[in-house]
Amino acid sequence: MTYCVAALVEEGIVFASDSRTSATLDNIATFSKMNVFETPGERVIVVLSSGNLATTQGVIARLKMRARDAQGSAAAAGILGVGKLFEAAQLVGGTLREVVSESAPVQQQGVDIGCHFILGGQIGGKRPRLFHIYPEGNFIEATRDTNFFQIGEHKYGKPIMDRVVKYHVPLKAAAKAIIVSFDSTMRSNLTVGLPIDLIAYEKDRGKITLRRRFDVDDLYFSKLSGIWSAGLRRAFGEVPEIEWGNEKKDG
Amino acid sequence: MTYCVAALVEEGIVFASDSRTSATLDNIATFSKMNVFETPGERVIVVLSSGNLATTQGVIARLKMRARDAQGSAAAAGILGVGKLFEAAQLVGGTLREVVSESAPVQQQGVDIGCHFILGGQIGGKRPRLFHIYPEGNFIEATRDTNFFQIGEHKYGKPIMDRVVKYHVPLKAAAKAIIVSFDSTMRSNLTVGLPIDLIAYEKDRGKITLRRRFDVDDLYFSKLSGIWSAGLRRAFGEVPEIEWGNEKKDG
Repeated sequence: MTYCVAALVEEGIVFASDSRTSATLDNIATFSKMNVFETPGERVIVVLSSGNLATTQGVIARLKMRARDAQGSAAAAGILGVGKLFEAAQLVGGTLREVVSESAPVQQQGVDIGCHFILGGQIGGKRPRLFHIYPEGNFIEATRDTNFFQIGEHKYGKPIMDRVVKYHVPLKAAAKAIIVSFDSTMRSNLTVGLPIDLIAYEKDRGKITLRRRFDVDDLYFSKLSGIWSAGLRRAFGEVPEIEWGNEKKDG
Repeated sequence: MTYCVAALVEEGIVFASDSRTSATLDNIATFSKMNVFETPGERVIVVLSSGNLATTQGVIARLKMRARDAQGSAAAAGILGVGKLFEAAQLVGGTLREVVSESAPVQQQGVDIGCHFILGGQIGGKRPRLFHIYPEGNFIEATRDTNFFQIGEHKYGKPIMDRVVKYHVPLKAAAKAIIVSFDSTMRSNLTVGLPIDLIAYEKDRGKITLRRRFDVDDLYFSKLSGIWSAGLRRAFGEVPEIEWGNEKKDG
């Protein structure tokens, strides 16, 4: 399984993904689910993916192949050439449809080749934008009210996201909340695991300045996990005992 | 949607269910998803259900109809007559198969008539037991290591269950953790809502002594929700800032 999340906040966009795929007890493969398309000073586009690995790799490979023309310049219709993030989302959606339609015969065998993408970033001086692209190739955009997207094994980590990651939260606090949501997810689902790739894109920088990989045995991640656990236990201890009333109660 | 959970602990078993079904924004119906079969001093059997309401009601109605013979005594083969909880789980599984097989033509129309049950309690002086009955009518039993089951919209509430509800936790603390897990679920999924029915069965009592319903506007539930939120925020504040290192970082 996969867990990917991205949050649009006032100061920028945070992206994170685990890197585990096809996890079973004796076969754990890791592939990066985070792809960055960057022209420093001009554009940053980050793409996260979940779902069928052949499909997601097929889409990413085509995006890369078509990003540059024969002379090595950014192709106008490619992900490094489009003038708007909306067009980049359309490009990913269209490429996804293309890859899926080629595999149409497979779908009849009951194999699920669907996948989800999160795409976000900034082009030129335009505002940062964030999109969730569905298996059908259509997509929705994050707003100030609905400012984060999760794909893959998303439910375990949603409660902390819902509580903390509002639009006005500082970029680094949003990044911290996202890593906490990974901790919750990994405790409840063994198929999501380290390493985690994390990017906090600072608005109007035009390049990625804050980037971090949490590998297995990462000291910060262990510390976070322990402190968060202890804090939760204390918070739980502070919740008052249930008042049972005396309904059907006897001595 | 539904969220039901039950936990087997050293001191007994806790059961809880929400009561909302068919929730859409303008049509919220509530039905109890918790059914108690009790012969005070002799047996307590609690059944929680999630899934297709016609199926779950069909199963519960048959269990009730067949619980007593024509003279009003407990029928030997009914849920008030069987000698072991294992047999009660078999009875629910068998009744489920019966109801589903009658609806076989419907399944061909693509309607999902599946459902899950949690069944637990105690008969006579035997040990308390807890089962999760699958849509196929087969089931698994809780153990000291895997001591709780969740059905319905279970993922949002699982992290707190995983952290707190171990076998040696006191009964009332397990009940409190379960209510916290409802709070997390309800924040992340609007289709799970109050009222919540809660039972904490104290081992060897042979009847239910601790029972509570949390209605809309329940003061304890509001208090719990606020204190837990504040505790989480403080715990989150204590988690150290991410150490970004200087990988790809510049001034």
